[in-house]
Amino acid sequence: MTRLFNDPVAFKDDMVEGFVAAYGRYVRRVPGCSGVMRASGPVAGKVGVIVGGGSGHYPAFCGLVGRGFADGAVIGDIFTSPSAEQAYRVGKAVDSGAGVLFSFGNYAGDVINFGIAERRLRDEGIDSRTVLVTDDIASAPPEEEPSRRGIAGDFCVFKIAGAAAERGMPVDDVERVARKANARTRTLGAAFAGCTFPGRDEPLFTVDPARMELGLGIHGEPGVRTVDRLSAAGLAAALTDAVLAERPQGAVGRAAVILNGLGSTKYEELFVVWKDVLPKLTAAGVEVVTPEVGELVTSLDMAGCSLTLCWLDDELEELWNAPADTPAFRRGDLSGPTFRTPAAAAAAAERPLAEAAEIPAATEDSRRAAATVRECLGAMLAVVEDNERALGELDAVAGDGDHGRGMVRGLRAARRAVEGPDLGAGETLRVAGAAWADNGGGTSGVLWGALLHALGDAVGDEDAPDLTTLAGGVAAGIVAITNLGKATAGDKTLLDALIPFQQALADADGDAIGPAWRDAAEVAANAAEATRDLAPKVGRARPLAERSVGTPDPGAVSLALCARAVAGILDPGGAV
Amino acid sequence: MTRLFNDPVAFKDDMVEGFVAAYGRYVRRVPGCSGVMRASGPVAGKVGVIVGGGSGHYPAFCGLVGRGFADGAVIGDIFTSPSAEQAYRVGKAVDSGAGVLFSFGNYAGDVINFGIAERRLRDEGIDSRTVLVTDDIASAPPEEEPSRRGIAGDFCVFKIAGAAAERGMPVDDVERVARKANARTRTLGAAFAGCTFPGRDEPLFTVDPARMELGLGIHGEPGVRTVDRLSAAGLAAALTDAVLAERPQGAVGRAAVILNGLGSTKYEELFVVWKDVLPKLTAAGVEVVTPEVGELVTSLDMAGCSLTLCWLDDELEELWNAPADTPAFRRGDLSGPTFRTPAAAAAAAERPLAEAAEIPAATEDSRRAAATVRECLGAMLAVVEDNERALGELDAVAGDGDHGRGMVRGLRAARRAVEGPDLGAGETLRVAGAAWADNGGGTSGVLWGALLHALGDAVGDEDAPDLTTLAGGVAAGIVAITNLGKATAGDKTLLDALIPFQQALADADGDAIGPAWRDAAEVAANAAEATRDLAPKVGRARPLAERSVGTPDPGAVSLALCARAVAGILDPGGAV
Repeated sequence: MTRLFNDPVAFKDDMVEGFVAAYGRYVRRVPGCSGVMRASGPVAGKVGVIVGGGSGHYPAFCGLVGRGFADGAVIGDIFTSPSAEQAYRVGKAVDSGAGVLFSFGNYAGDVINFGIAERRLRDEGIDSRTVLVTDDIASAPPEEEPSRRGIAGDFCVFKIAGAAAERGMPVDDVERVARKANARTRTLGAAFAGCTFPGRDEPLFTVDPARMELGLGIHGEPGVRTVDRLSAAGLAAALTDAVLAERPQGAVGRAAVILNGLGSTKYEELFVVWKDVLPKLTAAGVEVVTPEVGELVTSLDMAGCSLTLCWLDDELEELWNAPADTPAFRRGDLSGPTFRTPAAAAAAAERPLAEAAEIPAATEDSRRAAATVRECLGAMLAVVEDNERALGELDAVAGDGDHGRGMVRGLRAARRAVEGPDLGAGETLRVAGAAWADNGGGTSGVLWGALLHALGDAVGDEDAPDLTTLAGGVAAGIVAITNLGKATAGDKTLLDALIPFQQALADADGDAIGPAWRDAAEVAANAAEATRDLAPKVGRARPLAERSVGTPDPGAVSLALCARAVAGILDPGGAV
Repeated sequence: MTRLFNDPVAFKDDMVEGFVAAYGRYVRRVPGCSGVMRASGPVAGKVGVIVGGGSGHYPAFCGLVGRGFADGAVIGDIFTSPSAEQAYRVGKAVDSGAGVLFSFGNYAGDVINFGIAERRLRDEGIDSRTVLVTDDIASAPPEEEPSRRGIAGDFCVFKIAGAAAERGMPVDDVERVARKANARTRTLGAAFAGCTFPGRDEPLFTVDPARMELGLGIHGEPGVRTVDRLSAAGLAAALTDAVLAERPQGAVGRAAVILNGLGSTKYEELFVVWKDVLPKLTAAGVEVVTPEVGELVTSLDMAGCSLTLCWLDDELEELWNAPADTPAFRRGDLSGPTFRTPAAAAAAAERPLAEAAEIPAATEDSRRAAATVRECLGAMLAVVEDNERALGELDAVAGDGDHGRGMVRGLRAARRAVEGPDLGAGETLRVAGAAWADNGGGTSGVLWGALLHALGDAVGDEDAPDLTTLAGGVAAGIVAITNLGKATAGDKTLLDALIPFQQALADADGDAIGPAWRDAAEVAANAAEATRDLAPKVGRARPLAERSVGTPDPGAVSLALCARAVAGILDPGGAV
């Protein structure tokens, strides 16, 4: 379990601060951001390779920033996507004019947040590309390879992309080799015990000591099926056979191989497994090229390991073997780390970020409505705090268990952001949404951010909002969420509560906001409960998706909780 | 816990085989030995630096073999000293004529076994030196610094010695800088949970979740005192203050600093701690030189961390910062790993080891007595196997819990070694002793090996042994053990059972071996029980020594068990 922390909510920030303090010879923080970049700053004319995702995976992702590897890393809270704003800032800081490549594992929150960042950078004329890693063979069948999760194969794809960029390849080629590497990378893992979040006493999942989970994720999710525990040799055979069975078309004999430890399965155990992996691969005609046996993509202190094969051609082999020098990984002939002097630091490009937008003018009516919005945010925060653990437990059934914590973090930031300035109601909602997305991170942060932003646009800063405006704003929010998340009704997401809620608002009798909102909140609560019968379609390995049937969707539940809390403000005399 | 293994007894061999298979570009096995050396072989004219100890500490010790660091590593079973034979073989393989330096943490078993190897190498004209690491400030007060244990400070001393040898310094200077580094190195650690041996279900110790152990060892021993658990910042302050309080005389501002993770305390947590360690050190006027935050000297999957300061002068700083390139650690400008070609492999020096001694001639009488010796070894093995777990539990009270396993391993090897050849009784005892010492490892292996060797010399290969011969042989064994282990009567070792046993044999009425042996075995059993009231004086941190009062010494208990088992063979009709 995670035992060393201060305020659990500040874990990531403390971690990044300590990391940069230890490895200032390699990295520095991107200004105004928890992301990191090379201490020496962007290299003129070189494509910037940016990796990232939630924290808890060290050395992925920040330990891989350095020459021959990544130029920057965007780091979210534990197992939580970083926000679009953070990804944008790292992209902006790392770009030297040759374009940037984002690469990360295929998870819904990362896809949405990095996607927004990529579009913003493109709008500013920076040539941005994205390569998702989809190496986990347990998470979907071969014919659905693009929907697979990214796990330890991240390391191979990032390494090859980083070497290509270091070699001076143009962005088209860096993207091409990264895609080729991912298309040839396959991983399968096994887990013996789950990990525990800082501040929690219980692991995200437990495993019968006589059994093990096959097809694990790297976010504390259990595996896709539970099997009897194997000896080291038995596990070596099981992993090797399964990964070899998915040898991609056109793959010849050579492969980069990783035997990855997840955190508390130690090097000695990995070597015992490797003893039987190597002869099995050799017997299958695989020439193993510069293997790595160790902790490369971890999951806090989860117990288990995974086997990755990245099938090489001449180009990929050269890039896999190319030198690299980062805090956590070194290979080959690069000269020593650059010790950054104060002068070099001052000279390093620290580009100005986008200017803060001007505060739009607001009427007295709208400013009064803004006070109500602030009250509503406070009520939402209170109910989410009360239910943080329960929401986390719902999420842990098939996910990473961070939903409650992400909601609390996002709402705290949202409320704090609107405490000071005297804004109209529309701007209050937009500012709250931006703060939520940036600080909540993950999928829920970016979706709630979009919902509040759309609602704010609809409400505006002139008139006090009426019921029609609210219903229209929520509808616009649904459109924004659908565009971002690629989910629709019935996919077991917050939309399954939000859509009925919007319909109830739109169909309400009379003009009074309070009773209409209260009735709609009850509709949302019933709808959230009904998600129990659904299976998620997006961003989950199918076997895990099935595991969640019988449990309501945590996103829908928290939406209903928030809707009810707001009803208490808008309709204080209504029935409870 | 350790979950990935095949036969727990073969864990180390499987591990070394897998390690060499993964990192053949760096290392190869020393012939006929579980030790490893650089793949490129000894470097002519360069001092060979050999590190070692039990396994379970990766990257210590085998992960540190490579240019700029160690030339070879001797690896025992988990938390168990390697045998003298293994250390000798690695020393012999690594020497290029410039001499060798052994460096290892200060533990009784290592001191004895490496000491024997050093003397053998010297006898063969190889200039051998030893530098013990004694960095653990919790294990003895400052005035008893030479009796302190070696923990994560191993890494600093080995790194500096390795860099000195790589630079071409003569053996006098390599020894001098290693001693200087050790004299300036201080470590304190904290543990949250113990580790579990392969094949065991229970950890070596457990800690109340609200508390932590301060002053841990790296062999699964608990700390020297239990305190309330601290936040990351609180622990940073406690470790920093304690280590700074022992700033050695003459130490100026600079220090190499290690924040070491023990196994399942992850990098992210270490960075959170480092965030507060660095400013505290800076505020105390310490200039931190190229710190390392990570897993450098582990203890299987134990949870906890330690802080090490190695106070530098100009010479030590240059050596600390010097380049190195090993499977687990790299720094600076050395060119890439040498990929060993078959030709280079063939050319690499593989010196012949000492020839097998000729089998001495034996009489028929002595060969009949040898059959009895073999029966006795079988009975000893059976009783030790039956009591393996209980002996381990006795040992875990203040030690590393491996006594039972080490006895089983040693006795199995001893019995196997004498199965085939038709030897006399004396040679049977000597061969059994050599096999026990080489395979049992640790302290018990080398001491039992010496006892059997002395007994064999006394018994000889001509006459069937009589009681006087046996009593004299055991007396010679006591002398050998005392010379090796530096312990004496009352120090809570196997001597506290063996000395009364020998006296009872010597004082027995009549000439009959059987009844005399049986009576002496009962004396030994009572004496072993009486060790309950003693505190050990050798090779244990004092607070741990006190913890063991109330528990009999496992070495004395297993001696008594063996004596009784042998009585069952020599006096089959005797009272039980």
